[in-house]
Amino acid sequence: MPVDPIALTADLIRCPSVTPVEGGALQLLDKLLSDAGFETTRVDRNGTPNLFARWGARGANKSFGFNGHTDVVPVGDEAAWTVDPFGAKIRDGIMYGRGATDMKSGVAAFAAAAVDFVKDTPPDGAIILTITGDEEGPSTDGTIALLDWMQTNNEAMTACIVGEPTCPNKMGEMIKVGRRGSLTSHFTVTGKQGHSAYPHRANNPLPAMARLVDRLASHEMDQGSDHFDASTLAVVTIDTGNPATNVIPAACKASANVRFNDLHTSADVIAWMQSEVDAVAAEFGVQIDMNTRVSGESFLTPPGELSDLVSAAVEMETGVTPELSTTGGTSDARFVKNHCPVVEVGLVGKTMHQVDECVPIEQITQLKAIYTRVLRDYFS
Amino acid sequence: MPVDPIALTADLIRCPSVTPVEGGALQLLDKLLSDAGFETTRVDRNGTPNLFARWGARGANKSFGFNGHTDVVPVGDEAAWTVDPFGAKIRDGIMYGRGATDMKSGVAAFAAAAVDFVKDTPPDGAIILTITGDEEGPSTDGTIALLDWMQTNNEAMTACIVGEPTCPNKMGEMIKVGRRGSLTSHFTVTGKQGHSAYPHRANNPLPAMARLVDRLASHEMDQGSDHFDASTLAVVTIDTGNPATNVIPAACKASANVRFNDLHTSADVIAWMQSEVDAVAAEFGVQIDMNTRVSGESFLTPPGELSDLVSAAVEMETGVTPELSTTGGTSDARFVKNHCPVVEVGLVGKTMHQVDECVPIEQITQLKAIYTRVLRDYFS
Repeated sequence: MPVDPIALTADLIRCPSVTPVEGGALQLLDKLLSDAGFETTRVDRNGTPNLFARWGARGANKSFGFNGHTDVVPVGDEAAWTVDPFGAKIRDGIMYGRGATDMKSGVAAFAAAAVDFVKDTPPDGAIILTITGDEEGPSTDGTIALLDWMQTNNEAMTACIVGEPTCPNKMGEMIKVGRRGSLTSHFTVTGKQGHSAYPHRANNPLPAMARLVDRLASHEMDQGSDHFDASTLAVVTIDTGNPATNVIPAACKASANVRFNDLHTSADVIAWMQSEVDAVAAEFGVQIDMNTRVSGESFLTPPGELSDLVSAAVEMETGVTPELSTTGGTSDARFVKNHCPVVEVGLVGKTMHQVDECVPIEQITQLKAIYTRVLRDYFS
Repeated sequence: MPVDPIALTADLIRCPSVTPVEGGALQLLDKLLSDAGFETTRVDRNGTPNLFARWGARGANKSFGFNGHTDVVPVGDEAAWTVDPFGAKIRDGIMYGRGATDMKSGVAAFAAAAVDFVKDTPPDGAIILTITGDEEGPSTDGTIALLDWMQTNNEAMTACIVGEPTCPNKMGEMIKVGRRGSLTSHFTVTGKQGHSAYPHRANNPLPAMARLVDRLASHEMDQGSDHFDASTLAVVTIDTGNPATNVIPAACKASANVRFNDLHTSADVIAWMQSEVDAVAAEFGVQIDMNTRVSGESFLTPPGELSDLVSAAVEMETGVTPELSTTGGTSDARFVKNHCPVVEVGLVGKTMHQVDECVPIEQITQLKAIYTRVLRDYFS
């Protein structure tokens, strides 16, 4: 009997696996995959639960991978939900619950596809599943830990699908072949405190901050590239916390989030911001500290063999020709891309992270069919 | 026996008259002045205690006034004081306590001078004291209430000294013949919240705020006038309070404090800021609200009879020629100037509002001598 991806999604939703809690989700998958002949290993690191599973021989010429996560974001205001967030209730063909779209349905679809595929048509090669319990958290011991472990243990994928939701509104309309890079910089401008009646005795950090923000925010980083939208910089906060209108504050802080395309590396973005910082610091005679955290570099799996294969499968199963996109936030594809060609394809993500997160159950079936077709075509 | 202004200062310091508490300070002065033949009236308004006292006939051709306040700012961190803030302890010729300089010593000096002067050399005219218990607070029912009451009751001064501390470092070095105006504006820029990965779907208020602050802060309002320093604008805070680096905030707030000289009125300052607000709002497509509170207009008692008289007295008693200044924050002189020519002259204000506020006791004696000489010269 084939694995029902709808029932599997429901079982996974009932595991309350809010990051970093395992919640029984990986255990459930471990059992399913072991029973189907997969060799499984828990690759936990620093308390983060991760599952590696391989069917077929290590080092096969063709080793197709699926990557996903079973952890979910918190429920938020539980009173605002109309259903139990961990109940997997189905109403009018729609299943509700935290992780319904992001991404227990995706994991269920590829696990079901993989199990049935190796049973029905055992391929000449391997199928590898890497499933983490920390994609929604810091992601420092999740997919990275799995890939580190694979390298150490001579495990390799030759291509990989990340099963994150990729469609804005309609099933099949989008797959992702890359992502913009992302970094966040924190700026502190330090001047000299004083009385606002005597500004010449103080050195107000706020005009310098305003100039810096103006220069960063009004700069056009680029106009986009072949596969990417234009890079963006969003100043997300400026804060001083000075309640006294007769006092010039000593310091002011701001943060900016940059999403950059393949025309940039984080290093050149940082170098540009540092040059603006230096110019403003010199002009205003203030100290400006910049502290940057890089979430990921931009990357692109150039449209070709893998994206063609996935696009064709999506079109056959949904009747829709998917757009090859590089939009959106980060995903663990940013780690997988260092290992092998990677494409993201999943269902409609509209309700992810929201109250009453939900998925039409027919999309789960459709997604399993897409993944099955990808496997068949890849190994044919 | 003459009134000892040092003992009187100590008695006043021992009254814990933190705004808006009367603390016994006005009662003490009321008794002293009544006993000396002054006609006194408590002119309390909305719970704010105020004292009016006149010696001599109402409506005299020469009615010299003194204005001051007995309320003090809070003690702050009492543990940081090395003495009881309300103890008036004298150590090495210096008296310590809240209000030692701002301005119980000033009130004691002019009350002592007035009482002794009318006893020793009764003048052909009147001496009027207006003393409030709310100069450090909102000042809405203090000196204003006294002046309102005087108008209603046909009481008038022909000249007035405000006894606030006026010397930055050395006794006698400065008297004040006017003040800059002051206003504070609060700005709220409202855009549209969104995800920082999709800034085109949001409308970030921060670049608009940065541009507005930059335009306001980099504008040269003027280069000063005959008796005034250049006008200044200090942006004192910019705040967003957005902890999420992946979220573009909906709104941002900022405040600016403007000190403007006699080349401006508050109305033209506000009109200029509003034009900048309108320009930035239009350019960035955001809403910007501006809310302004005017603390006072700029004013000048043109150097002449009164300032000459006061300068001469200061020089005779201290050996120092005072500078006629318009610097500093606001004082109740901004209200008195609508009533009659006003000059501010007092002692060194260096420790005002600080921990271990203190006054060299010889300065109190000197200040009484200055006030006495002013009275003598005014009525001679």
